[in-house]
Amino acid sequence: MRETAGNQGVWFVSFAEATEVFVDRSRPGRYRSTIADNWDVVGNTNGGYLMALAARASSVAAGDRSPLSVTAHFLSPGRPGPVVIDTAVQKEGKRLTTVGATLAAVDEEGSERPLITMLGSYTGGTIDDEPIERVEATPPEMPDPDDCVAVAPGEVFPPNMMGRIDLRLHPDDAGFGAGRPVMRGWFRLLDDEPIDPFSLILATDAFPPTIFNAQLPVGWAPTVELTAHVRGRPVPGWLRCQYTTRFISGGLLEEDGEVWDGAGRLVAQSRQLALLPRSG
Amino acid sequence: MRETAGNQGVWFVSFAEATEVFVDRSRPGRYRSTIADNWDVVGNTNGGYLMALAARASSVAAGDRSPLSVTAHFLSPGRPGPVVIDTAVQKEGKRLTTVGATLAAVDEEGSERPLITMLGSYTGGTIDDEPIERVEATPPEMPDPDDCVAVAPGEVFPPNMMGRIDLRLHPDDAGFGAGRPVMRGWFRLLDDEPIDPFSLILATDAFPPTIFNAQLPVGWAPTVELTAHVRGRPVPGWLRCQYTTRFISGGLLEEDGEVWDGAGRLVAQSRQLALLPRSG
Repeated sequence: MRETAGNQGVWFVSFAEATEVFVDRSRPGRYRSTIADNWDVVGNTNGGYLMALAARASSVAAGDRSPLSVTAHFLSPGRPGPVVIDTAVQKEGKRLTTVGATLAAVDEEGSERPLITMLGSYTGGTIDDEPIERVEATPPEMPDPDDCVAVAPGEVFPPNMMGRIDLRLHPDDAGFGAGRPVMRGWFRLLDDEPIDPFSLILATDAFPPTIFNAQLPVGWAPTVELTAHVRGRPVPGWLRCQYTTRFISGGLLEEDGEVWDGAGRLVAQSRQLALLPRSG
Repeated sequence: MRETAGNQGVWFVSFAEATEVFVDRSRPGRYRSTIADNWDVVGNTNGGYLMALAARASSVAAGDRSPLSVTAHFLSPGRPGPVVIDTAVQKEGKRLTTVGATLAAVDEEGSERPLITMLGSYTGGTIDDEPIERVEATPPEMPDPDDCVAVAPGEVFPPNMMGRIDLRLHPDDAGFGAGRPVMRGWFRLLDDEPIDPFSLILATDAFPPTIFNAQLPVGWAPTVELTAHVRGRPVPGWLRCQYTTRFISGGLLEEDGEVWDGAGRLVAQSRQLALLPRSG
């Protein structure tokens, strides 16, 4: 065991440990877990981390199938502490099982406050051995991780969760001066912990918002919805990530994510819809 | 009233009438509706039409708020006939209300078969009066609707639902010889019925699959999941639509949709994840 950087003396826990879920026999389909410390962004638990928790419970509910496509709507901000995840299997199919899940914080009196609600399809099969493949895109070009900008948590900024992952931003995007809404960088878990579908979901929400690079008078953009598709099983090592925004309008913006592995394959694809913070 | 083309003598009903939902007081949050005739694609009800039904019920459940972002997972194929839609409000917020919904077919004995399950956020406010706007894309270039290829239902192909909408495909894409997975065209409702957020959802799933243009040995691709974001209120008239696929891999493909109005504004954005039909 070792301490992680910037987390004020909390023992190191792996991502797998920080997202562990336990069957709660008090109610069918119910699971318990704990939001670990220091997964927050300005005080609110990272959305991708909450989705990983809900996806792990759903995955168990689906009979140990693996997430293929998950969508979360964000209801209220999370804080470290106990949570319950209520799952409902909507359909158990041959290839896919569809599960709904709601993750709620539990306070000291036992009352629950829903944080996210999620819908997902889970697969038992491999998705890597299909013969037809046609890709009309290439991974983002970036300097090597060591030539990118490592992000470590600061007193106010960058946020605490940056001590929980290893993030290296493209030098052109790290200073928030790119002039266009894009964010590129490398992602891996601490100690190079192997990437599973749950950490792929985390990766789709682990980067600073693209609008930090858009030179607009805005701050953090609260996510309404995030959909992540798991498109492959990554080879070990760094993930190459790119987030772009094409439409800032009507008080909304989307953020499209691509996560590529070291073999040059797309392994996750995401889109989130966020509210543009109101100015004044 | 008039007959529509190719629908064997069924009276014309507007899209609003074909997606009408009724409160069912037998259970809280329950609505009833009917899958109208001739909204099918090779025998299965169009997914966008089913989503519009579920969104209309959810919208009422949300206190007459309007869909902002909806995600459906597809459970089993629909057929014309009675359906129930069970809704559950997850959170009623100041700006957004989040609603889960499951739409199920009801057979003659009254037993239910879930067709789709949906999660969505609904808004009470306008989304058109925000000052900050930045768009890094342009509407697809296409010949005028009259110079595009009108799609009318045939005995086997095109599917029946093409008699329910007015679709004009880009001449380069209509013959399924484009050589790349793209589909562009114009969309409007019959009799130029005004486009509301529900018909925008329909538009995101109303076009032939992009893979028809990819020159791959494949047929209809069953949708796993479809997410549609309503990004604006269209001006009256034709919608300019574009669907593209960049990643066909692992037995899956995504289809990204953009729906633009006559004033050149993006009014809906979608992504669906579909299974590549297995060859042999």
